[in-house]
Amino acid sequence: MSRIVQKYGGTSVGDTDRIRRVAERIKETRALGHELVVVVSARAGVTNELIARARSVSANPNGRELDQLLAIGEQETCALTAMALQGLGVDAISYTGPQAGIFTDQFHTKARIRSINVKPIEKDLKAGRVIIIAGFQGINEEGEVTTLGRGASDLTAIAMAAALNATSCQIFTDVDGVYTADPRVVKDARKLLELSYDEMLELASAGSKVMQSRSVELAKKYGVVFEVRSSFNQNPGTIVKEEVAYMEKVVVRGVAVDKDQSKIVVSGIPDRPGSAARVFRSLADANIIVDMIVQNAGRQGVANLAFTVPQGDTERAVQALEPVLAANGGGQVAVQGRIAKLSVVGVGMKTHSGVAASVFQALADAGINIELISTSEIKISVVIELDRADEGARVIHAAFGLDKA
Amino acid sequence: MSRIVQKYGGTSVGDTDRIRRVAERIKETRALGHELVVVVSARAGVTNELIARARSVSANPNGRELDQLLAIGEQETCALTAMALQGLGVDAISYTGPQAGIFTDQFHTKARIRSINVKPIEKDLKAGRVIIIAGFQGINEEGEVTTLGRGASDLTAIAMAAALNATSCQIFTDVDGVYTADPRVVKDARKLLELSYDEMLELASAGSKVMQSRSVELAKKYGVVFEVRSSFNQNPGTIVKEEVAYMEKVVVRGVAVDKDQSKIVVSGIPDRPGSAARVFRSLADANIIVDMIVQNAGRQGVANLAFTVPQGDTERAVQALEPVLAANGGGQVAVQGRIAKLSVVGVGMKTHSGVAASVFQALADAGINIELISTSEIKISVVIELDRADEGARVIHAAFGLDKA
Repeated sequence: MSRIVQKYGGTSVGDTDRIRRVAERIKETRALGHELVVVVSARAGVTNELIARARSVSANPNGRELDQLLAIGEQETCALTAMALQGLGVDAISYTGPQAGIFTDQFHTKARIRSINVKPIEKDLKAGRVIIIAGFQGINEEGEVTTLGRGASDLTAIAMAAALNATSCQIFTDVDGVYTADPRVVKDARKLLELSYDEMLELASAGSKVMQSRSVELAKKYGVVFEVRSSFNQNPGTIVKEEVAYMEKVVVRGVAVDKDQSKIVVSGIPDRPGSAARVFRSLADANIIVDMIVQNAGRQGVANLAFTVPQGDTERAVQALEPVLAANGGGQVAVQGRIAKLSVVGVGMKTHSGVAASVFQALADAGINIELISTSEIKISVVIELDRADEGARVIHAAFGLDKA
Repeated sequence: MSRIVQKYGGTSVGDTDRIRRVAERIKETRALGHELVVVVSARAGVTNELIARARSVSANPNGRELDQLLAIGEQETCALTAMALQGLGVDAISYTGPQAGIFTDQFHTKARIRSINVKPIEKDLKAGRVIIIAGFQGINEEGEVTTLGRGASDLTAIAMAAALNATSCQIFTDVDGVYTADPRVVKDARKLLELSYDEMLELASAGSKVMQSRSVELAKKYGVVFEVRSSFNQNPGTIVKEEVAYMEKVVVRGVAVDKDQSKIVVSGIPDRPGSAARVFRSLADANIIVDMIVQNAGRQGVANLAFTVPQGDTERAVQALEPVLAANGGGQVAVQGRIAKLSVVGVGMKTHSGVAASVFQALADAGINIELISTSEIKISVVIELDRADEGARVIHAAFGLDKA
């Protein structure tokens, strides 16, 4: 008997018809004799609707109250899923995040899980029940509802799989796995059967929307092997784990495009120790995640810094930089909005030279200009013009032969 | 400084605009320096919507899961109301029923309050916060969410007022008080400024939809004085309390019509001890509330029983009676659907004779036939033809001069 954690995303439980289909699917798995814990998201669109309602009563809603409000989205689907299972004759019980003993820190709307008390769930599993848990939420020391950040139902599933020593963890979503590139952009993109945590992490941070980095990090930390697959068909998905055995040596695993970035250039900063630190400290204080930093010394003792930030943070970033430039004694800020980040990911890169050169060559052959470059052990990212991002993904996908198994 | 409990019903918090208006109103009361605890219902229609969703995934949803689901309606409005107040610069905090320490028994979907732990609320009141509580819900010993039955947000408010020793309790709704009759039916109906608990109870059970009997009973038990008033205007409402001082002796206080009843006649039951008991035991076992029972001995050792049940329970009542008739050795069941219950209520009746006679005379003068009669110390109810119910209310209202203050 295996112990399986499943997670169903917002489109999979998007209406009562779909909830009934998810229940059928859970029933099939249960019929195989497995112990089963299921994490559900809110119905697609509900969280945004609730946020809109919050904003219509208060310009800047308080985090505690926002969490109290947002938690109802998953509370609804978990109760409905349990009911649907009971309607199919399956013994099921729903738990909200607080009821599931998911204890978090105090940080409303982006709380981190501290510990999970699995005793009540273990007891219900022993009693033969299927457990349905509301994703995305927990409880803090004050007894207040907390939420874990957008997309964090995956996190609930991974954390539960770790806490319950699950045999496997299945992330059901509306795509049937992780592809070598976005199939809507690159038509011969291929589904990957296996992927390492590090590759998945780089793909996630490079703009592949399948899963949050944070959930993958947690899986890596606790060694939770998980499968990303579709709730709308029976296709096998992509299994993500620590070490991936390749049939042959694969260098590059996938290409990702992130169009949700802005490029910010800070020029004319006095080239003194601490100038750059002050720039990034001010952005960090404003809770803005900066990526792809490039610094170069300019002429006459001034330096230039370029980096990317999420598009939604652009304005706040510029505001955060103003006092720093004043304190640093000079400099200008320029924003370039119409850019994209194109990333090539693969653990094989660690031991292969020439990957960067191939990326640059492929783009050059297509006449695509590179504005920024950053590399990690298993990723190369370049910033290019937004309008040529999809074309860039296609030429790189072809250059590395990613369409061939 | 007074301590006030306010309750806002579903139409008062029906959308975010209305929630903002409720917040303005709460702010005004708070500005007078009062300590303030506010109980809110779900947005009008939401509970029915959730029940429909539950039924679409399961024909007979489990009580625990139904409560888990239904609780989100009030959780939403309480969080939004707290946010709206914060948006107006008022320090406010929301509590779900479980967070508010409302402990109930195990009976899902119709739980009864056992105790309330007011410590966290007292602490927040001391800190100057306005407390917003999700009505209709509590928590049982298992840590499960329970709900208190439809319309039970009033109950939460009355219970809170009792537990917190509130100076007053204001029930804000979409009508601006209790009238001598339904103003839509009787155009010269008059708003009552004061009413005793007993009169309110009889009016509630007689079909006046303003408040549940159960909430009034609780108010009577704990001596909670409450006011029923409109959230859409500033008119004073109706104050309900133990003893009402009348300027002059008033005999009849109001007329109520209940069109949601069916009449059931069980005829030809063998007239032996225990026959009637078996009939009503079977209905009680089916959890059907029976009203206006009339028994008469028929000819040749058989008896007839007539009574009314809520319309929605008619079919179940007939089913529950079948085995009883078989066991009793005979009898027939007949249902009469198109009836209404017309009630005349007033504490003055206790010491006045002739009220019943006046009621019967007024109806007879209008040519309205009476099918059943039942009386209490402060109420006379008659069953009449449904189509003549409104006319009956008008003639009785006029007969007792209820249009005159």
